[in-house]
Amino acid sequence: MSDARTRVRRLPERQVTDRATLNDLLDATVYCHVGVALDDGVHVLPMAHARDGDTLLVHGSTGSRLMRALAEGAGACVTVTEVTGIVVARSAFDSSMHYRSAVIYGTFHPIVEQGSAELGQGSPGAVAALDRLTETLIPGRSAEIRPPTARELAATMILAMPLTEWALKVGAKHPDDPAEERGQQVWAGWVPLTSRAGTPVPADEESAGLPVPASVQALVERVNARP
Amino acid sequence: MSDARTRVRRLPERQVTDRATLNDLLDATVYCHVGVALDDGVHVLPMAHARDGDTLLVHGSTGSRLMRALAEGAGACVTVTEVTGIVVARSAFDSSMHYRSAVIYGTFHPIVEQGSAELGQGSPGAVAALDRLTETLIPGRSAEIRPPTARELAATMILAMPLTEWALKVGAKHPDDPAEERGQQVWAGWVPLTSRAGTPVPADEESAGLPVPASVQALVERVNARP
Repeated sequence: MSDARTRVRRLPERQVTDRATLNDLLDATVYCHVGVALDDGVHVLPMAHARDGDTLLVHGSTGSRLMRALAEGAGACVTVTEVTGIVVARSAFDSSMHYRSAVIYGTFHPIVEQGSAELGQGSPGAVAALDRLTETLIPGRSAEIRPPTARELAATMILAMPLTEWALKVGAKHPDDPAEERGQQVWAGWVPLTSRAGTPVPADEESAGLPVPASVQALVERVNARP
Repeated sequence: MSDARTRVRRLPERQVTDRATLNDLLDATVYCHVGVALDDGVHVLPMAHARDGDTLLVHGSTGSRLMRALAEGAGACVTVTEVTGIVVARSAFDSSMHYRSAVIYGTFHPIVEQGSAELGQGSPGAVAALDRLTETLIPGRSAEIRPPTARELAATMILAMPLTEWALKVGAKHPDDPAEERGQQVWAGWVPLTSRAGTPVPADEESAGLPVPASVQALVERVNARP
């Protein structure tokens, strides 16, 4: 089943199987789309994610119906997509996007502070996993702020899925129109798309009187350093 | 069921029910994540989308297992997410993202050139629907290129879902830390994220000798005009 589900059938030449590219995509993005079937149908919700070695982490409210179903082991599909350009071919048919997309299948396990036997040796506790999620969103922030309170931990469900069954597709080709499409004075090419961070905006007077912290400065620089 | 599925339970104050905001989100984005349950589990795949009035359009290969299941009326969930900022609170718990996210439930119908009785009066044929998809990705492009060939149409499945059952969530608040978090010399605020288009890159020598077409120039300007 594993092989069948992760074999890319459409445009198979775009399938990438090396783990380093998967890691790079997961580390370059901050949110994913999690799909699960509940009793009233399939639901797909965006969630912040983080990678911790061979594990994908997400978190949400302990009161969420979807999070509870995932914690109970419902089969899940997590998809992470990054679009980096619009491909403009000489035909609509060959016009497309530059993208990287990972589809990860599996089941999640809850992470609790005492560690979970199911997750094996060395699995992080809840506080370490939350730090990992915070560090993915805003690297360096954990050291600038107080640790989570017991009340916050009780309200937060942290889920981990092993990165074992996944398919990765990379569409990075420029338009390559067949010979018969050429010579018609029609332009083909692509438009690069990048994400850019603007000037940090303080939330209140107290923050306006403080320097922008190192974590936030680094976040802006990291986003804007991408090609 | 409709009400139950589209009632936002977590952070219900972020639910937005006006249709104009849904339209705006669908029109400002070019891809969605489509979830469906097949016999080997839930699958979530990214797809380009377009809105045509009260209908959401997607397209893919007629050979795709997922597209065929959708065409046969499998229950689907389409999620469209736009992230526009990172919210940096004084606690990890309240740190988050600025986002708009629509979750649309329903079933798709295939669109064929002769029109489909299931879709009712005025539903576009396949060529018009493909034009709509092209125009969403690259506005003005359809007029610059040849129409699709019969071979291309035969290879393309176009699917339409009515925009009837949906939930929309907008997280646009700045961090608003409780009083007891303040006065600790900790900065709170947010970092705006925007998508920016770079200089169009010609695909080949013929294109390098032609001016960048109006559609591509307009695409760049449209992306870069966003706040």
